[in-house]
Amino acid sequence: MAKILVIGIGAGDPGQLTLQAVAAIGATDVFFVLDKGEIKQELAGVRQEILDRHARDRAYRVVTGQDPDRDRAADGYVEAVEDWRRRRADVCAALITDNLGEGQTGAFLVWGDPALYDSTLAILDDLTARGLSFDVEVVPGISCVAALTARHGIALNQVGAPVQITTGRRLAEQWPSGTDDVVVMLDARNAFTDYADQDDVEIYYGAYLGMPDEILIAGPLPEVADRIVAERAEAKERKGWIMDTYLLRRTRTSHGGG
Amino acid sequence: MAKILVIGIGAGDPGQLTLQAVAAIGATDVFFVLDKGEIKQELAGVRQEILDRHARDRAYRVVTGQDPDRDRAADGYVEAVEDWRRRRADVCAALITDNLGEGQTGAFLVWGDPALYDSTLAILDDLTARGLSFDVEVVPGISCVAALTARHGIALNQVGAPVQITTGRRLAEQWPSGTDDVVVMLDARNAFTDYADQDDVEIYYGAYLGMPDEILIAGPLPEVADRIVAERAEAKERKGWIMDTYLLRRTRTSHGGG
Repeated sequence: MAKILVIGIGAGDPGQLTLQAVAAIGATDVFFVLDKGEIKQELAGVRQEILDRHARDRAYRVVTGQDPDRDRAADGYVEAVEDWRRRRADVCAALITDNLGEGQTGAFLVWGDPALYDSTLAILDDLTARGLSFDVEVVPGISCVAALTARHGIALNQVGAPVQITTGRRLAEQWPSGTDDVVVMLDARNAFTDYADQDDVEIYYGAYLGMPDEILIAGPLPEVADRIVAERAEAKERKGWIMDTYLLRRTRTSHGGG
Repeated sequence: MAKILVIGIGAGDPGQLTLQAVAAIGATDVFFVLDKGEIKQELAGVRQEILDRHARDRAYRVVTGQDPDRDRAADGYVEAVEDWRRRRADVCAALITDNLGEGQTGAFLVWGDPALYDSTLAILDDLTARGLSFDVEVVPGISCVAALTARHGIALNQVGAPVQITTGRRLAEQWPSGTDDVVVMLDARNAFTDYADQDDVEIYYGAYLGMPDEILIAGPLPEVADRIVAERAEAKERKGWIMDTYLLRRTRTSHGGG
């Protein structure tokens, strides 16, 4: 049976690779890449650097498929994402059947941790449901959440308290009930600005975490929100892409000590 | 100025060390260890194996303090934890002032990721507030959450949906509102059994993740809850300690796709 590795490679700093990930990369025959077009060339460069360093003792191939565009104008968010995943799965099905031989090992390299807001595992489930046959093994990675808190030198949770990980889309609807600490991913429209009048909220923001252009901004949200909006827009304009996340922390203890 | 590294070393498998963590261990003069007594000798063994492998090119010292007991009978949970942290901070203050010279590098090795339900960063904040002077650098680690999802081969979140990370104590009070996916840590009393009559809840349970005695159990909660309670009790009895976590996933989409 062929094997497919889903390897978390960390949030952008090649030093965040685990020893397991290094070994997995060294054992891979075929790397599958979905090409997102030119905007993420810099990330492709880091990925290539990882392969050059850790896959060099073995003959390996990199095969590339065209990542389909997501229909961002579609009405239903989940439906749009699921349609996009289906089309990505079509591309991956072709990549795998055309390139992965019996008994060989293929791999997808995933930024951050494969479990967090990444579609690779769902795509592989889809392919299995379509009748493709392979074993899947996941190598966990340093998530952008762990990278964010490490770079700010902070804990994710307050003592005995919960933490919610959510999306910009959800945060724009409402602050998650029952938690003072909210990590936000996939926020393309500055959802944190909806809370910029709240004196008791701090933000810990990070972009390009662990990379040369890293941006770290922390402080009371009313004081730093505008600066984050401006630096984020400037960086995205200049580089053509952005990968960022943030933690919002309510400092009053509204939910008691439990 | 002296430097203190807080190094995440992963959830139990030494292969989860990152290249950054390996480098940080190799650059450390003094490792600070709080001795929790004999029950975690096995973990101390893994830690020593990590030092033997990655700190060997340098003269290094391991200095050990006595970890104070936590008053588990105390009324206020947060107060009890804070009192415990204060007493741990006293121990750490002595360890650091007695052993870390000017310009030297000390390190705490932390299981999982230092940001998640670990007190080391709070203790160092406390020491800084007391007037001790050192730079702190955090090296993120593979959390038990990432290890759990990787070993089960699942995503943490459903499409576009939030995830809550919380404690057994909180889960015993109520299911966190607004989320179908809940990761539970620090659950000493099987809080998941409170939901074992709910047909729409699945559990993904893991103990000793990535270690030789790893336990993985997944399935509809009503079907597997008893087995988890039994295997957990048996393992804890046999080994004297347990390190475990789980994800509860509501499979109905009660919160829509938004």
